[in-house]
Amino acid sequence: MSRFIVIGERIHCISPSIRRALAERNPQPILQRAKEQLEAGADYLDFNIGPAERDGEEIMSWGVELIQKEFDNVPLALDTVNKKAIEAGLKVYNREKGKPIINSADAGDRIEMIDLAATNDAMVIALCAKEGIPRDNEERIAYCTELLERAMALGLDPNDILFDPLFLVIKGMQEKQVEVLEAIGMISEMGLRTTGGLSNISNGAPKELRPILDSATVAMGIQCGLTSAIVNPCDKRLMETIKSCDVIKGNILYADSFLDL
Amino acid sequence: MSRFIVIGERIHCISPSIRRALAERNPQPILQRAKEQLEAGADYLDFNIGPAERDGEEIMSWGVELIQKEFDNVPLALDTVNKKAIEAGLKVYNREKGKPIINSADAGDRIEMIDLAATNDAMVIALCAKEGIPRDNEERIAYCTELLERAMALGLDPNDILFDPLFLVIKGMQEKQVEVLEAIGMISEMGLRTTGGLSNISNGAPKELRPILDSATVAMGIQCGLTSAIVNPCDKRLMETIKSCDVIKGNILYADSFLDL
Repeated sequence: MSRFIVIGERIHCISPSIRRALAERNPQPILQRAKEQLEAGADYLDFNIGPAERDGEEIMSWGVELIQKEFDNVPLALDTVNKKAIEAGLKVYNREKGKPIINSADAGDRIEMIDLAATNDAMVIALCAKEGIPRDNEERIAYCTELLERAMALGLDPNDILFDPLFLVIKGMQEKQVEVLEAIGMISEMGLRTTGGLSNISNGAPKELRPILDSATVAMGIQCGLTSAIVNPCDKRLMETIKSCDVIKGNILYADSFLDL
Repeated sequence: MSRFIVIGERIHCISPSIRRALAERNPQPILQRAKEQLEAGADYLDFNIGPAERDGEEIMSWGVELIQKEFDNVPLALDTVNKKAIEAGLKVYNREKGKPIINSADAGDRIEMIDLAATNDAMVIALCAKEGIPRDNEERIAYCTELLERAMALGLDPNDILFDPLFLVIKGMQEKQVEVLEAIGMISEMGLRTTGGLSNISNGAPKELRPILDSATVAMGIQCGLTSAIVNPCDKRLMETIKSCDVIKGNILYADSFLDL
């Protein structure tokens, strides 16, 4: 078994300082967040530029080069619905430390992101969704299969797809949590890899509860086969939990110092 | 689904202050630990008097009455290999807040603890073991079945048995962790309840790591169906994790204050 893959979520245009930095092409706030996440143990960094309809291509290629140059070609997830921006990012991306991840395809309007991954030998996050939130696991698995079939027809290695079951908010959708965990189990049993925006689950919960809820969920998810997540790696409790689960599953060797490694 | 059952492990003769208190029939140290554990959220208290070959009957009945009288007939797990001491404890036990738990039977020398539970309408912790540590899950399930059959032949309700897969120490038996979790899954799929001495897993690990490892394990265990554990309820991180898992599984309703309830 390979180690759990942590994709750092903190370079995201939803943050006002990052949005401004992207608009002004100001490296500092972006590099700062990259540094913090890498020091905290992120394997991949997500670079989310939003829809970026106007100058997406320029922003994406600027950001990819900026971050990879500063941090020894750290592998990135290129995150936008703008296909041309993804293409521009892929063009300048350096693969030395790992393939780029396209974030994300779905079974609806964004299905062509699968094609883009196949054409460019990239990885891709594939949402098990078409329009809005899947109603149940029958829908999730139907979309998962649809995405998988398209990918395989195009010659994309199933290992290069991270299926995202769509984590849902506990506060309001508490009764859906078991279903999402079961979806991870079902997808894992098909031999496929999974990921997801874990912190969705604790959205709207008091700040001090979020690391607690996220940590419990990630451990339960890993037991179901979850192989990756898009998270805040600066959440110490969460990272401790992920590493502990990796030890329990035998993905990393136990040593008294395993949290520091 | 019902809530996870926390059995507090801290009134244990392995602690020098408790051993002395038992020998001297000194209530204070015992009541202090009972109070701490109940305030921290324990559902049951384990009362471990060791082998107590000489005066086990007297100690057990003294302790059961002492704790139940002070704490509104809190339900207890009577913990000793001394069968006569268990019988003496059962005689004075008040069932108002819940059946007594006999801790524990196994498929070897202690199989008659099953009979004792059946005769006395008690619950029982049943170790999936005969002599020493079970070699693999084939052995665990064989012992589980053996214990279950004996119990059912004697009219004991399977819901009154908490099967213990035997948690093993990570430091030295890291490769066994997945197996123990799988055993929990297998026993749960048979519709049976489970428990265990969770903190075994972090035995010998640095003190600051133990709550982290125990919490990750309990969440993974609960995902497999674990319904109870014998733990230190004063471990805040562990209790937060257990409550969060109960929320995720829908066993308790989410509220922003769920950790305080």
